[in-house]
Amino acid sequence: MKTVVVALGGNAILQPKQKGTIEEQMANVNEAAKNIVKLIKEGYNVIIAHGNGPQVGNILLQNAAARDQVPAMPLDVCGAESQGLIGYMIQQNLLNELKKEGIEKPVVTVLTQVVVDREDPAFQNPTKPVGAFYSEEEARHNMKTKGETWIEDSGRGWRKVVPSPQPKEVVELEAVNTLVKAGAVVITVGGGGIPVVKEGDQLIGVEAVIDKDLASSLLAKELGADILVIATDVPYVAINYGKPDQEDLKTLTIAEAEKYLAEGQFGKGSMGPKVQAMLKFVSAGGQGIITSLNSLRDAVVGEAGTKFIKG
Amino acid sequence: MKTVVVALGGNAILQPKQKGTIEEQMANVNEAAKNIVKLIKEGYNVIIAHGNGPQVGNILLQNAAARDQVPAMPLDVCGAESQGLIGYMIQQNLLNELKKEGIEKPVVTVLTQVVVDREDPAFQNPTKPVGAFYSEEEARHNMKTKGETWIEDSGRGWRKVVPSPQPKEVVELEAVNTLVKAGAVVITVGGGGIPVVKEGDQLIGVEAVIDKDLASSLLAKELGADILVIATDVPYVAINYGKPDQEDLKTLTIAEAEKYLAEGQFGKGSMGPKVQAMLKFVSAGGQGIITSLNSLRDAVVGEAGTKFIKG
Repeated sequence: MKTVVVALGGNAILQPKQKGTIEEQMANVNEAAKNIVKLIKEGYNVIIAHGNGPQVGNILLQNAAARDQVPAMPLDVCGAESQGLIGYMIQQNLLNELKKEGIEKPVVTVLTQVVVDREDPAFQNPTKPVGAFYSEEEARHNMKTKGETWIEDSGRGWRKVVPSPQPKEVVELEAVNTLVKAGAVVITVGGGGIPVVKEGDQLIGVEAVIDKDLASSLLAKELGADILVIATDVPYVAINYGKPDQEDLKTLTIAEAEKYLAEGQFGKGSMGPKVQAMLKFVSAGGQGIITSLNSLRDAVVGEAGTKFIKG
Repeated sequence: MKTVVVALGGNAILQPKQKGTIEEQMANVNEAAKNIVKLIKEGYNVIIAHGNGPQVGNILLQNAAARDQVPAMPLDVCGAESQGLIGYMIQQNLLNELKKEGIEKPVVTVLTQVVVDREDPAFQNPTKPVGAFYSEEEARHNMKTKGETWIEDSGRGWRKVVPSPQPKEVVELEAVNTLVKAGAVVITVGGGGIPVVKEGDQLIGVEAVIDKDLASSLLAKELGADILVIATDVPYVAINYGKPDQEDLKTLTIAEAEKYLAEGQFGKGSMGPKVQAMLKFVSAGGQGIITSLNSLRDAVVGEAGTKFIKG
């Protein structure tokens, strides 16, 4: 039975113009679950990775709003909370949709830490703004007392920026593997995983954000998965995107993808990182697909999506 | 190899007079982890259940404080977040402490739903206050629009009360079992589990709180665990507690325990529910122990704690 890692984009859980109520998020996740069930019905072992941007953002805002009553938690802990929040929504919806199809399969969220390297150059250059806007006074206080980096953000206030280092190791890999082999659908590396560094053999949480596509790619490689699907908003990767001569790509070799990346064909904050994450997996010998959530099943059976090939 | 379910009390994670900073919670959890490692070194398979009272309380306060910016999440979702938060702390500390002892063992938090019965009489009589104090206006609005129950709490404001129904089924039992059999230390039924009801075969989250000791007892029974330990602040269950003639009990038969319960020897909000949870497991044939976290290893090897016996 083939194993597929599906990386769900943030929009699969909360869409940009939505408020973020539980009803909205549950409805989105239910749609995602229906698409995943289609894939499970084809006989694939499925592992689900997901983003957490809007959710961890909201948790950080809640931490900020209540900080005079309740000590604010650091980013790694908020990330763990978001894995609970999102994992629960996916787990429950997926179980329910499987039951509707008469499929009895365990669905389980594994709280997942991902190791990053303290020497990763990203730690010298934090770039990722997270959480609420604070006053200059608080920002300067945190820079001084906690060694954090804060930036003034277009006149709207001060915001913390954190590094986005490369994922190196999925700490709970063995548990994920055990569950997958036992036939469970596993939800893991939520939000790219909870970032930790190793000091000797000890794990320590750090304030960082790991790209969820890179973490999914690493997970797929370490698990020896057959296929990695990065689900996004569009059914195909395209060149000349949004222009009259836009061309949807059915296949993309590593060499072609690298050429297009160098040309800047893929957006830096959007398709570019997805293609890069994909190349890491495909170079290591796996099959890779980028497609939309609605095309998930069709893409895996070879009827849709942009397929990455080694040759 | 014998299997032990350890139910950690809330104080093992956050003590009543502490503020709740991450440093305090991590230090407490580290102490707990050290005690659990002692037990693992004796060769037991260990499953960890835990409370979440202070943590979910804080998450609810954070949700309330930010409710004009971020839609507040319902209690089941906040419970899932607290499983992420606490599971992460336990998982990381336990892994680190195991490494110090040279023990390589997966440690994994399974996000866990627990089924309760919609017909449970507790739903007719919500008694458990949760979350922040609100204005009378908001309380009345929520009573009217959401069918919730709110009470005026000793002049401090209005507070939601939720039911505390009996746990009936651990949804993720099979996954927990798979992991335990593979040699993992599993963290599960955090905060008594995320409460869900079944409508047909569909799971739906509900606003309720499940007693963590009852959930641990159910888990131990369903897993076929050999031993259930409820870890609390005292090394022994006592009669005439806090009086000059206090008597620590080394063993307690079911009949004796029931007699003392009827006499009101055990506090209604403290030791009483723990003894009741214990009796359910021991009646079903398991071994039960109530003791302090510091005595955990000694109790399991028979050198401390109050042992519950069937006969």
